[in-house]
Amino acid sequence: MSMTSTNADVVDIARKLIACPSVTPARGEVFAVLEAMLVPMGFTVDRFVTGEAPDGPVENLLAWRTTGAGPHFAFAGHLDVVPPGDGWTSDPFTPEIRGDLLHGRGAVDMKGSIAAFVAALASVPDDVPGTVSLIITGDEEGPAVYGTLALMDRMAAHGLRPDLCLVGEPTSSQRLGDVIKVGRRGSVNMWIKVDGVQGHVAYPHLADNPVPRLVRILAAIDAVVLDEGTDWFQPSNIEITNLEVGNPATNVIPAAAHARISIRFNDQHSGAQLIERISAIAATEGGIVSAKISGEPFLTEPGALSSLVAGAIKDVTGVEAELSTTGGTSDARFLSRLCPVVEFGLNNATMHKLDEAVAVQDLEDLTRIYALVIRRALAA
Amino acid sequence: MSMTSTNADVVDIARKLIACPSVTPARGEVFAVLEAMLVPMGFTVDRFVTGEAPDGPVENLLAWRTTGAGPHFAFAGHLDVVPPGDGWTSDPFTPEIRGDLLHGRGAVDMKGSIAAFVAALASVPDDVPGTVSLIITGDEEGPAVYGTLALMDRMAAHGLRPDLCLVGEPTSSQRLGDVIKVGRRGSVNMWIKVDGVQGHVAYPHLADNPVPRLVRILAAIDAVVLDEGTDWFQPSNIEITNLEVGNPATNVIPAAAHARISIRFNDQHSGAQLIERISAIAATEGGIVSAKISGEPFLTEPGALSSLVAGAIKDVTGVEAELSTTGGTSDARFLSRLCPVVEFGLNNATMHKLDEAVAVQDLEDLTRIYALVIRRALAA
Repeated sequence: MSMTSTNADVVDIARKLIACPSVTPARGEVFAVLEAMLVPMGFTVDRFVTGEAPDGPVENLLAWRTTGAGPHFAFAGHLDVVPPGDGWTSDPFTPEIRGDLLHGRGAVDMKGSIAAFVAALASVPDDVPGTVSLIITGDEEGPAVYGTLALMDRMAAHGLRPDLCLVGEPTSSQRLGDVIKVGRRGSVNMWIKVDGVQGHVAYPHLADNPVPRLVRILAAIDAVVLDEGTDWFQPSNIEITNLEVGNPATNVIPAAAHARISIRFNDQHSGAQLIERISAIAATEGGIVSAKISGEPFLTEPGALSSLVAGAIKDVTGVEAELSTTGGTSDARFLSRLCPVVEFGLNNATMHKLDEAVAVQDLEDLTRIYALVIRRALAA
Repeated sequence: MSMTSTNADVVDIARKLIACPSVTPARGEVFAVLEAMLVPMGFTVDRFVTGEAPDGPVENLLAWRTTGAGPHFAFAGHLDVVPPGDGWTSDPFTPEIRGDLLHGRGAVDMKGSIAAFVAALASVPDDVPGTVSLIITGDEEGPAVYGTLALMDRMAAHGLRPDLCLVGEPTSSQRLGDVIKVGRRGSVNMWIKVDGVQGHVAYPHLADNPVPRLVRILAAIDAVVLDEGTDWFQPSNIEITNLEVGNPATNVIPAAAHARISIRFNDQHSGAQLIERISAIAATEGGIVSAKISGEPFLTEPGALSSLVAGAIKDVTGVEAELSTTGGTSDARFLSRLCPVVEFGLNNATMHKLDEAVAVQDLEDLTRIYALVIRRALAA
């Protein structure tokens, strides 16, 4: 048994990643920095750029280390970050420790988490049978069309298929380890258009106002109860997010009326079923629906993987993790097609905000948690 | 008995007025041309400019001729015209006869009508006891804040108050004389705002979506039946003319939602009552209403004045006029506060359109009708 590195300080690694400005989509330097860490640890690294405008090109990195036959444990994440915005106390791409906190864009979402995983790998013997892989995209915060999906194709091309997957998104809420995500709701947006006949308000018999028909459609949609929730999911929810007619003239009956709705839905539904259902409601008043499914829901029923992660959290921090399915979508929605997947990472209080920061203690604890997870996953 | 003019060809007068470009608000030249015609006919002319931006200044002309004690008959109209728009066959401000038609902006709305009235005056003896007046504004097609209302103040200052009033708007529909307007509906616009709390669609419990509340308000408004119409008015009507949220982000619950409605209403209602009624509906869902009353309804119950005008029409053209209250608003809504008022003028088929034109025969017939109306009104 040998250690692949003796110099894997998680804060140093996080600093190096944060220092690369990698506003989504990430390209180049930040991938080179990560590659340079993984290669000496015995990983095969496949970096590739794929996709075309408007949703590409995107850079991705697939790395794997196989030591004989055994379980394949994958860690998934992203090196792109959201734009910093104006008003930071210190430069967002110059990592800086103030007090107990390391500041910088991506500190928690999710370069800190990647740093913890890399540091954890350094403490794992490299002769345990099995495969460890890293599935790292440069486009999770953007359209995500050529990111994790492309990495999954690449894995298949290399004959790789994970047995268990951990996505390192910042799931912790109040303190490190309090939340593991075992599922996510699906998301679909729909645009409803009702056509009418424009005219003068003084002569309504010569016009056909589309607005009352849109109002009736929306009232019917607002009355829909999709479900009451499940053991693992909160109720599915419909929000009307926009209305638009665009008629500046007070004496004109408009020619068309538009609305947009957003549905976050649990595993009682599919995007296609919801589109069909809303389209049927709209059709009763002549409305036409177009739609875009952002993600289908996924659920990794609580079991071996969530217990493994929760156990590691408990052993390191003493915290009892809650298994949750709340919040937005993540790339776990794609990876769940391959194998059981859960999400666990740093505290999300400052993600996407000014002065994003991570507690140094959390980085060190997360490194210890990930190390236990890797060892136990390979032994499973 | 003497005639005040022997050279009052209606087509010549109409040509002179059309040749003055007087896109609303009209000022200067077109008033000077009219004044120069009226003064030789024994009229006292008071031209004045009043009002400040944004709804002024506006030029108006009040002219009157009193010959002893007798009825006061007033003719009301406007010298401003709507913008010509692009695509005319001939220049809109160069009057041109092609075939049977005189072309030019304002030919029917309503320089042609003013020309007919002036030509008619020339055929009326100037020694019949009574008063004839012209109430001519330069702002009927615009805000109309400093137009006819200011003229009414000016009349009062001169101690003038009409007993009967004819507004020369183009009311004829299929042929000259087929429609007299004896009333107009009122008009009010209302803006409904519903405030909420912005948030992320994934966390609806942290937000308060104003859109479903606006939808419920609009559904309630759409279900309102204001009335079934009266002997003289069609039913009052509510149109939802605009919706606006202005939220480009599919994952955001918006902070506010807006709608605009337009109500055209008969004399069963007042603007203030309707504002109160809609405000009460909006309040049930936290909506706030602001409103602007464009005009209250008026009705000159069919009687002496409408019979007088209809009789003159019948005598000249043989047409049986319909008494109507349809269409938009006119300055008759103001003048009706003073005395019985009806509207009658040229065929409105081309008003506000490209290649606005009037039949020369209609100009001549209208002159004969107006002449009968003046003589019979003064004899009443």
